[in-house]
Amino acid sequence: MKALVFLGTNKVGLVDKPIPQCGPGDVVIRTTMSSICTSDVHTIAGAIAIPVGRTLGHESVGRIYQMGSRVTGFNEGDRVAVGALTPCGQCDYCQRGYSTQCGGALGGFKWTTQREGNLSEYFVVNDASYNLTPIPDSVTDEQALYATDVLSTGIAAAEHANIPVGGTVVVLAQGPVGLCATIGARLLGAGLIITTATKPERQALSKRVGADVVLDPHRCDVVEEVRALVGPEGVDSAIEALGTHETFEQAVRLIKPGGTVANAGYHGWKSQAPLPIPIISFGMGMNAKTIRGLLAPGGREHLTRMLRLLQSGRVNPTPLTSHRFDFSEAERAFQLMVRKGEEIIKPMISYEGDEW
Amino acid sequence: MKALVFLGTNKVGLVDKPIPQCGPGDVVIRTTMSSICTSDVHTIAGAIAIPVGRTLGHESVGRIYQMGSRVTGFNEGDRVAVGALTPCGQCDYCQRGYSTQCGGALGGFKWTTQREGNLSEYFVVNDASYNLTPIPDSVTDEQALYATDVLSTGIAAAEHANIPVGGTVVVLAQGPVGLCATIGARLLGAGLIITTATKPERQALSKRVGADVVLDPHRCDVVEEVRALVGPEGVDSAIEALGTHETFEQAVRLIKPGGTVANAGYHGWKSQAPLPIPIISFGMGMNAKTIRGLLAPGGREHLTRMLRLLQSGRVNPTPLTSHRFDFSEAERAFQLMVRKGEEIIKPMISYEGDEW
Amino acid sequence: MKALVFLGTNKVGLVDKPIPQCGPGDVVIRTTMSSICTSDVHTIAGAIAIPVGRTLGHESVGRIYQMGSRVTGFNEGDRVAVGALTPCGQCDYCQRGYSTQCGGALGGFKWTTQREGNLSEYFVVNDASYNLTPIPDSVTDEQALYATDVLSTGIAAAEHANIPVGGTVVVLAQGPVGLCATIGARLLGAGLIITTATKPERQALSKRVGADVVLDPHRCDVVEEVRALVGPEGVDSAIEALGTHETFEQAVRLIKPGGTVANAGYHGWKSQAPLPIPIISFGMGMNAKTIRGLLAPGGREHLTRMLRLLQSGRVNPTPLTSHRFDFSEAERAFQLMVRKGEEIIKPMISYEGDEW
Amino acid sequence: MKALVFLGTNKVGLVDKPIPQCGPGDVVIRTTMSSICTSDVHTIAGAIAIPVGRTLGHESVGRIYQMGSRVTGFNEGDRVAVGALTPCGQCDYCQRGYSTQCGGALGGFKWTTQREGNLSEYFVVNDASYNLTPIPDSVTDEQALYATDVLSTGIAAAEHANIPVGGTVVVLAQGPVGLCATIGARLLGAGLIITTATKPERQALSKRVGADVVLDPHRCDVVEEVRALVGPEGVDSAIEALGTHETFEQAVRLIKPGGTVANAGYHGWKSQAPLPIPIISFGMGMNAKTIRGLLAPGGREHLTRMLRLLQSGRVNPTPLTSHRFDFSEAERAFQLMVRKGEEIIKPMISYEGDEW
Repeated sequence: MKALVFLGTNKVGLVDKPIPQCGPGDVVIRTTMSSICTSDVHTIAGAIAIPVGRTLGHESVGRIYQMGSRVTGFNEGDRVAVGALTPCGQCDYCQRGYSTQCGGALGGFKWTTQREGNLSEYFVVNDASYNLTPIPDSVTDEQALYATDVLSTGIAAAEHANIPVGGTVVVLAQGPVGLCATIGARLLGAGLIITTATKPERQALSKRVGADVVLDPHRCDVVEEVRALVGPEGVDSAIEALGTHETFEQAVRLIKPGGTVANAGYHGWKSQAPLPIPIISFGMGMNAKTIRGLLAPGGREHLTRMLRLLQSGRVNPTPLTSHRFDFSEAERAFQLMVRKGEEIIKPMISYEGDEW
Repeated sequence: MKALVFLGTNKVGLVDKPIPQCGPGDVVIRTTMSSICTSDVHTIAGAIAIPVGRTLGHESVGRIYQMGSRVTGFNEGDRVAVGALTPCGQCDYCQRGYSTQCGGALGGFKWTTQREGNLSEYFVVNDASYNLTPIPDSVTDEQALYATDVLSTGIAAAEHANIPVGGTVVVLAQGPVGLCATIGARLLGAGLIITTATKPERQALSKRVGADVVLDPHRCDVVEEVRALVGPEGVDSAIEALGTHETFEQAVRLIKPGGTVANAGYHGWKSQAPLPIPIISFGMGMNAKTIRGLLAPGGREHLTRMLRLLQSGRVNPTPLTSHRFDFSEAERAFQLMVRKGEEIIKPMISYEGDEW
Repeated sequence: MKALVFLGTNKVGLVDKPIPQCGPGDVVIRTTMSSICTSDVHTIAGAIAIPVGRTLGHESVGRIYQMGSRVTGFNEGDRVAVGALTPCGQCDYCQRGYSTQCGGALGGFKWTTQREGNLSEYFVVNDASYNLTPIPDSVTDEQALYATDVLSTGIAAAEHANIPVGGTVVVLAQGPVGLCATIGARLLGAGLIITTATKPERQALSKRVGADVVLDPHRCDVVEEVRALVGPEGVDSAIEALGTHETFEQAVRLIKPGGTVANAGYHGWKSQAPLPIPIISFGMGMNAKTIRGLLAPGGREHLTRMLRLLQSGRVNPTPLTSHRFDFSEAERAFQLMVRKGEEIIKPMISYEGDEW
Repeated sequence: MKALVFLGTNKVGLVDKPIPQCGPGDVVIRTTMSSICTSDVHTIAGAIAIPVGRTLGHESVGRIYQMGSRVTGFNEGDRVAVGALTPCGQCDYCQRGYSTQCGGALGGFKWTTQREGNLSEYFVVNDASYNLTPIPDSVTDEQALYATDVLSTGIAAAEHANIPVGGTVVVLAQGPVGLCATIGARLLGAGLIITTATKPERQALSKRVGADVVLDPHRCDVVEEVRALVGPEGVDSAIEALGTHETFEQAVRLIKPGGTVANAGYHGWKSQAPLPIPIISFGMGMNAKTIRGLLAPGGREHLTRMLRLLQSGRVNPTPLTSHRFDFSEAERAFQLMVRKGEEIIKPMISYEGDEW
């Protein structure tokens, strides 16, 4: 089979690998559609140390090709999805409800970092009884792909932001996760959603998926502008979706006393300097502000609920799809994500094969 | 009457003032006992701008001397307590459950900063219907004083730390608030309480009020030592009770993924540099850690519960009382708090008067 | 002025009363629009003992006519709303976050039961600092009326139902509260909303405001049908919005282990027999089901958020308006509500007056 | 090996069985100590249909005798405990945090009902990676036995009762679970704990483990007496720990508006009539009361925290041990539990064997 692998800093390519074997608790999936995540881009740039030749990717769906002996409740050929996180369900973190941290910090994230990714014609799902999820007939592969990662992350960000019903929220940056956080804030009852985006296309897309007001951080002081809109006390909640020190600080400044910052951005990739909490805006430590980091949950139960939201038409992230490729073009798709070229947001990658 | 007032940076003194008058929603209290808080010390050093002549103090109990026309349910002579925070109960923050931030950041804290403090022979309680609380007969003035501020703060710190029942917690520093946070962690079902203290007396006191293990940060690396005790993943919860960048960073490092830091320390008094979140220990923003600032709630309902804990003997903070003074010695007591001399922890100040 | 008053069991009529006077903490409102609530109907039928001549109603908006001396932040003529519940903000229940139970069971509900209602040309708002809420310009009187009671109740029902994001919920009955609970479930991220209604118009309206599936309880066994749709384990949450023993029992049976019933129905009006919890469906007391009663919160902070949802177009309850009357026709409107005639859902009652 | 088995309604006896075999995910334990639970007594009386010959019991500890091929992190001979509930950790209920309902209602409870119990010289632990828990050296077998079931249940009851810190709680009945709920309420910061018990020995024991006030329901009207103690509004929380309609109704009446009933009692054993919610005390469905059913969680992570509470001396349930037997006397011990003779509360049953 073909797989898109890491070939050294900022280099990727399609190589041949054997179709993987199935352990007793695993399943092998024949891939029908994949996407590429910004975190894949960070990974090949050096954010996470992985061996040369490791298959990339953690956003793929497909059909069951082979099932391990302990896996029940599925049949070969079933159309299935699996999350970007694939927790074990057994460790203390999973038992305590922190399956994102399965086995230790960020440990629920196993694709590419702990094992082969799934940007390949076949891939193995670990702990399949915990993670494998049927895709309802009325949900497309493309929709299901969003559910596996970026939509789940955006919704989790909105949940962690503790937005009171009818409350006010700012989502800082409108990349794929930020746009999905806008979707999430809308889904969960925010009364006013303010977002920030610099590009006109993103601004339009932000409004399309749920923003009430979009601010251009290159053209205004975001904190000033938000206060002009909602009053000097600030908003109930802020979602950091960029991963810079500047937006993190802004998030803390934007919320009112008692408010919450949900951090969905990936920090520390280029700098490992401490994340700064502005001390006055944090009330010298005493104004009841909350800062929460997060990753999107894994597991079948959660993914089933995400897929239900797509099935019932509650959310629709597909306007984020900006490009479509065949898997044979995966390298080019990947490099476009690296360059952030052609206004790319999310690329969809299809796999050939009449038999599907 | 006599009042202890601010006379310029780091200067305080007893002066004569008229007995205060009572507005329709207020009561005037004749003071029976007061204490001095470390935040009074910060205030006179310049942390908060107050006019010369302003009465200091926010920890006092006494008996009702005069009642405003709108206040009902009390009688003159009733023995009463009132919190260090005296929220209005009416503003949006109070309505949302953030009465500590009454009217804006830290706004529940009105004594000295917004109006006269209560280190005086008589003092006025604003919004008495919301704040005035009867002291049960079996609770002493000394016990009730703890409930008004430092004990409430320590218990609120433990509540904000989200300690699972039987879970593990570190309380960083064992000043008055830290010791009360130890009491709070014990009260709320922590399974293992580790504290840090440098002075032998404090170490002994820490154990007496509830610590299982006390570490000396001058003699060990606290993070290393905690990991040796509980395993490399760290503890469920940490309470920062000192107010330094170093202990704040430690708190984030000490908790496991999914854990919570409750910040009870007052930061930013000497430096307004941002509070640093160590980026690796924060999982690049993604390991589900939560950081929460806090102040102790005000209001009668909450103070009633604090007093009940003293009445039933559930907690006993009186071992923290290290010194006793007559109000005529209040200046000396205050200066001892400033110097942190004579191993002072909490001083109790009594007011003369046969008629009580 | 004219007021619609109680004249004996199931009798109401317009009578002349003096324009009410304003206490120092009150405001007098000149009414612009009112609605009638099903609970008014219960009241005149004898559910709550009230004196003959008591003004009915608790859903009215208008403009400030006169302000008490202690009320600040408003001007005469301001367009304002006030909740069906008008808590004091001072008592222990209000301080604990249970302002619906202000001063005791159901005590937040003061209109008609504790004091004059507001189906009159002028009415008094108690505790105005806590309760009075400006109506944004872009929100109509009709919309604001929904926010004061039935929409708030429906949203509160959805909040109390603890619906996981993307989860499944059944709303039992689609009267005004049930329809608003459907709006609330949609607003708060439910993935599948099943409702029950017998009349075709209501079924259509239920779908219009957010239901995915509407079941007719006269034509199917609701529990069987729901299980056929979601699986034998049942739904995550159920909202009881009728107030019968039968639907209450159904609600407990419909939820899966770990699920929640939010009770929004008014029980016990015709019978005071105990509400029955079906013992097998409750797992003999052990299957982690939760049953919660509720009333819609009062207070300005909450009502402001409800109004924001209307302002941003997040929810639109106005399809529930089935009838329009002039206040001179209020008696007829009321009797129509009593008879449930002409497919009435919510009537809007306008007040004459060029000067508005 | 010997096992205590069900021999027909209300009949039990020791029989010989082969030492059980170990599946790949299981471990076999050689038992060192067991206890008998009241629910075993209900089971043999017919509450749950089980085949004749089924081994009884779900409270046992011991040492690892044999390990399945997939089980890691343990060694033969390790001293271990396992909960009365042994969830799989994989199903949707487990993934959602309701492992007590593993696979369906009450499904976490597998011993005796779904498979062999553990009142036998050897027993098998299913899903050992999820459930098996090391016992700390300083915790005795007797203490650990409490953690596996009755102590966990009592603490879970206190957690579900949502007692505010310093709040008031009534625990109805002081059988083993009720006594442990008293321990739990004390552990979690209740300010006033009122219990009910009829026998003088139980009353004394109740005080010993944490009650402030013990009422005798045969000598007073419990609701009246509680109101005399705390005021007419009632208590914050009530824990039903008997399993009768009468105490369930009392629990709802005892709590104030906004309060919570945690149901720990096993209802429906003798009658399957609906559990009655008194309608007036439930505010016609609207006074914000919450009723929650519960079972004690299973799983290693939870059991580890329970064991930590014993290790640190936070709680001590061993005063509940009223009798000690050798396993050869298990039938007599069981019959004593059935008869509730000799003031039995909890019997401890030891297993012979020099090699331990």
